[in-house]
Amino acid sequence: MKCLDESNIDCPAESMGIADLGCSSGPNTLLLISDIIDTIDAKCRSLGSSSPEFRLFLNDLFNNDFNDIFASLPAFYNRIREEKGTEFGPCLISGVPGSFYGRLFPRNSLHFVHSSSSLHWLSQVPPGLESNAGTALNKGKIYLSKSSPQCVLEAYSKQFQEDFSLFLRCRSEEIVAGGRMVLSFMGRSSEDPTTEDSCYQWELLALALMTMVYEGLVEEEKVDSFNAPYYAPCPEELKVEVEKEGSFIVERLEAFQVDWDGGMMEEYRTCDTLEGLSRARGRQVAKTIRAVVESMLESHFGTEIMDDLFQRYQEMVGHYLAKSPTKYINLVISLMKRA
Amino acid sequence: MKCLDESNIDCPAESMGIADLGCSSGPNTLLLISDIIDTIDAKCRSLGSSSPEFRLFLNDLFNNDFNDIFASLPAFYNRIREEKGTEFGPCLISGVPGSFYGRLFPRNSLHFVHSSSSLHWLSQVPPGLESNAGTALNKGKIYLSKSSPQCVLEAYSKQFQEDFSLFLRCRSEEIVAGGRMVLSFMGRSSEDPTTEDSCYQWELLALALMTMVYEGLVEEEKVDSFNAPYYAPCPEELKVEVEKEGSFIVERLEAFQVDWDGGMMEEYRTCDTLEGLSRARGRQVAKTIRAVVESMLESHFGTEIMDDLFQRYQEMVGHYLAKSPTKYINLVISLMKRA
Repeated sequence: MKCLDESNIDCPAESMGIADLGCSSGPNTLLLISDIIDTIDAKCRSLGSSSPEFRLFLNDLFNNDFNDIFASLPAFYNRIREEKGTEFGPCLISGVPGSFYGRLFPRNSLHFVHSSSSLHWLSQVPPGLESNAGTALNKGKIYLSKSSPQCVLEAYSKQFQEDFSLFLRCRSEEIVAGGRMVLSFMGRSSEDPTTEDSCYQWELLALALMTMVYEGLVEEEKVDSFNAPYYAPCPEELKVEVEKEGSFIVERLEAFQVDWDGGMMEEYRTCDTLEGLSRARGRQVAKTIRAVVESMLESHFGTEIMDDLFQRYQEMVGHYLAKSPTKYINLVISLMKRA
Repeated sequence: MKCLDESNIDCPAESMGIADLGCSSGPNTLLLISDIIDTIDAKCRSLGSSSPEFRLFLNDLFNNDFNDIFASLPAFYNRIREEKGTEFGPCLISGVPGSFYGRLFPRNSLHFVHSSSSLHWLSQVPPGLESNAGTALNKGKIYLSKSSPQCVLEAYSKQFQEDFSLFLRCRSEEIVAGGRMVLSFMGRSSEDPTTEDSCYQWELLALALMTMVYEGLVEEEKVDSFNAPYYAPCPEELKVEVEKEGSFIVERLEAFQVDWDGGMMEEYRTCDTLEGLSRARGRQVAKTIRAVVESMLESHFGTEIMDDLFQRYQEMVGHYLAKSPTKYINLVISLMKRA
């Protein structure tokens, strides 16, 4: 899906500020930037106007591998120069490290903000997941679950509201009037925050941990005290926060179903039994989830249990997907800054 | 020496763009930024005005260790918040990778540009250091030397003129009218480009390499074909380029003498003979030079000769400093962008 539709761009400014929040590092990081540059370039050509100065900001947390991104920039700049000529741009790419739950960019400097697969991460584990006596309230779970008490559901929802509202407030200072923001992240389709499509990847991970508790490999207290700084909101929750904050108009808000092992069918061609297919799918999902959550689990549970944990997880996921049609829900919201 | 004198700041803008070109990475990188923030803060307090939004740009080449700088930012931001309160700023620090011999920043976005120990590096080894037949013209040397032919002197001087002029042209697009630029880098005091104070560290390094040639450890052709992308200009050359380019007024231009082993006297307290002192000074200088030039020598001569080379160099430097008062010359130029 293209995040920027040419028909949505008004006459481009002389200098355009564009930010990718949660850019990560890897072969995909510059694809988005490339896509945006191409789209704006096409619009300028169709209007017969020269290309703007591109101020391109790549943001992620302080420990993101910016060196890796920067090392690929000379080749990127060469390609732009070859494809578009030396008069194009200039394209000025910079790295902006820090949390997007805080100010990152100058006032009124951005025309387009994009963020993919990042805003489901909360700024912190919600407070209030322990009783006053210090007992864990979300026992045996690491995210919301059918068995989580109401106060845990509320703590998560409140943290999301505060974070998303702060996010909007910061961006509203940074985005020019009429500027656009397209955000996509994990969500859920129903109002119930414990619905399988938003929780079940965590439910199975908690279950894998609990099998290790029963075998004496992990302390139960460790599982009880771990809660993921994650929240998958429903569309209604987004709308409420956008309206409360007041600086943005919701232009579009859509929910997409995404396979747990999204688009990997090519890799399953060699599976000739249903059981083989389940195993392959389990392996694929476990690999993806491990890439995302391992560092946070490691610092709580220790490095040494990771291989065992994800081996168990992969098997559970395989079995689960063989009998369940559960998919992730990806929310995409497009916002325009009010004048 | 403070690079920004409080008395030089006019009433600060609402948002100030500040860049450090060739910021490197290490414990000193953020000291400059800290110094600049403190100076502007003091000025604002004295005027009774609130602090501006600080847009702080750290620039160095694509392969600089930006991860290392970014990892130290959380502590830096905490300190600013503790010292100056949460209403201060915001301070928005970003990394801008790329060569300063090209555009790096948006048009009219910078109020103050600083660069220390970087502008003596040329954008490339000057072309024209070989005859038409492909013979090296600067035989046995790796930088300008008393024995270098006139065409080599001219090739170096021409490359510096082109680079410094391009540098000024790029910055003139980026700096606002009235904005300041303070640049400090290696230079020379006399008009003669082969004067010892600007060349002799390279002369001794070439000599160390040539001793290895005589012992069959390095091919002579390797030395002949290596030339450092470096130039130490005299004040007059700077003035000429600034005037030719035309966008800046020279406010101050000074030359400072710096010891080869600048300010390391404390470390020599344990030396009880003159010979011991020479050895210690040689070691100190060789260590500093090695940190700066090793990567470029390695890619030409190979890693395996480095220890031997710098052992020889350290001894030569020790002997040389024992009988010679040669010092480096550091040029500091302060420029103001014309209206």
